[in-house]
Amino acid sequence: MAGLRQRFSNLDIINQVDGFPNASTHPALHAERLSTLTPFTHGSYILGYLLPSVVAALKNAALSGTHWAFTNNTVTLAGTSSSERSAHIAATLAAWRAAGTFAVLKCWRNELYTVYCPPEHEFLHMERSACALFGVVTYGVHMTVYTVCPDASIKLWTPRRNPAKETYGGLLDNTVAGGMPEGLTPLETLVKESAEEASLPEALVRKNARSVGCVSYFYLRHKSAGGEEGLLQPEVEYCYDMEVDESVVPAPGDDEVQEFNLWGVEKVQEEIALGSFKPNCAMVLIDFFIRRGILNPENEPDYIEIVSRLHRRFEFPTR
Amino acid sequence: MAGLRQRFSNLDIINQVDGFPNASTHPALHAERLSTLTPFTHGSYILGYLLPSVVAALKNAALSGTHWAFTNNTVTLAGTSSSERSAHIAATLAAWRAAGTFAVLKCWRNELYTVYCPPEHEFLHMERSACALFGVVTYGVHMTVYTVCPDASIKLWTPRRNPAKETYGGLLDNTVAGGMPEGLTPLETLVKESAEEASLPEALVRKNARSVGCVSYFYLRHKSAGGEEGLLQPEVEYCYDMEVDESVVPAPGDDEVQEFNLWGVEKVQEEIALGSFKPNCAMVLIDFFIRRGILNPENEPDYIEIVSRLHRRFEFPTR
Repeated sequence: MAGLRQRFSNLDIINQVDGFPNASTHPALHAERLSTLTPFTHGSYILGYLLPSVVAALKNAALSGTHWAFTNNTVTLAGTSSSERSAHIAATLAAWRAAGTFAVLKCWRNELYTVYCPPEHEFLHMERSACALFGVVTYGVHMTVYTVCPDASIKLWTPRRNPAKETYGGLLDNTVAGGMPEGLTPLETLVKESAEEASLPEALVRKNARSVGCVSYFYLRHKSAGGEEGLLQPEVEYCYDMEVDESVVPAPGDDEVQEFNLWGVEKVQEEIALGSFKPNCAMVLIDFFIRRGILNPENEPDYIEIVSRLHRRFEFPTR
Repeated sequence: MAGLRQRFSNLDIINQVDGFPNASTHPALHAERLSTLTPFTHGSYILGYLLPSVVAALKNAALSGTHWAFTNNTVTLAGTSSSERSAHIAATLAAWRAAGTFAVLKCWRNELYTVYCPPEHEFLHMERSACALFGVVTYGVHMTVYTVCPDASIKLWTPRRNPAKETYGGLLDNTVAGGMPEGLTPLETLVKESAEEASLPEALVRKNARSVGCVSYFYLRHKSAGGEEGLLQPEVEYCYDMEVDESVVPAPGDDEVQEFNLWGVEKVQEEIALGSFKPNCAMVLIDFFIRRGILNPENEPDYIEIVSRLHRRFEFPTR
């Protein structure tokens, strides 16, 4: 009965992850979408877009008059330093959390993310689960750990997420993946997550993990992400590959992962097509397959669109 | 006196190649630029943008009334098949060439490029040197051939273009690079160019060249490209890497290349910073360095912007 199950092309997967309209290719759709949103700005910079429900909640928030300003169809945050702005955000979030204003804050992580403005400069810190309410860019690291067989074919270490996890429970994932908390560089985040999630030793990762680029996409959050549907999540994932020999076997180090499987390329591609992967992790694997020539211009009809959409350019300042 | 010479960052190089304003990040600049251009359209598709000088010349062209239509601030081409449309373009170009209307047509190549519309469907063929007059997307292949030393460091085979070449004469280039003519796939183009430009045997290339992605950018042509300055050239370059051992030594196979040098990464990066490379070839090398972790988020401050701008998404239908 497998034929009854929907099959996704690689471009379908990209469309699931990079769902916000593009100003170049779909200017009318993009303008229509923007007309429903309010920019969260600082000077001439747009930090993110706010849904009407968030603007309304900001206007109602305790201290709103002191911390938030609403002018010219933009929202701005008061404060002259990162610590002052971060404190204002924290106060607003505490009020929302206490009032149960947004379901997404029930996934409270107690982990701070950094928002950059101007580019490469820390602007404020914000609780991880709140980022999608403000539509600000978030950052993570993803690593594909693989072995090369004697016949040169590749096998990928593929974890299944704990089915009990509230976000994307039971779906397949990249070998290592995690959000980038305040204060850590991509490499330091990778070392930490590799130990926590996959029990990979620090020395091994520092020696053998290879930085290979980043993917970026503008995600419209699905219900399985936790919290309200349709929240805006522009995201950059720093990508790493690590080739290992058979002696290296990832093992769950915390409760994030249920099990690790070592699967060939065909099996991984089949599971991508069946929608078994957390969508942004499928995207990281598509990038891996492109860089290794497994997907190439001779066998992937949507090659150019896929490669460009793996690397969306944002209108927001980034790290 | 080296200190007197300008040094370019990697982002400076990207800016040289991807010079057309981006609708997402610079909407005002983008709109201002578009207001000076006329879209060359087919139905709801934009095939390219036309400069005022080109629109004026189209209106003057012999047969203009039959072949070209000017309505609603767009230009359209008559014809119900690729061969009919290609014949119309050829007639217009023959008239312009005879009259000396555009300097860029003095670089006539006698080589046909394919324009796609809708995406992945052949719409017409056009003489290579005329593509920048119509602002249509062009395609090429670039291959980086390299050796890995016993200490794991990399050396890249780096050609210098024939100083007598009218386009970018004397500048450094990728090991193999060439435009994709009508009728050939990227891989077949690569095989052909590898033999012609670098004397690399077909069997070696078919066995060892690895497809690794593509770069895409919207180039505003510099004088050194030949012909009028400021012509519009959106371009996709399919990228390949090929690792070889010391026994493989590329050698000029035609008059395109003066010499090949096997240079370490540091030397290549130095020459990129000095502006010694043909700019889009420097971009292909930046992509190579990113995929190999030589440029990474810990040492390249503009990492995210560079990675996204190596992969511009076009508003035009592509191959």
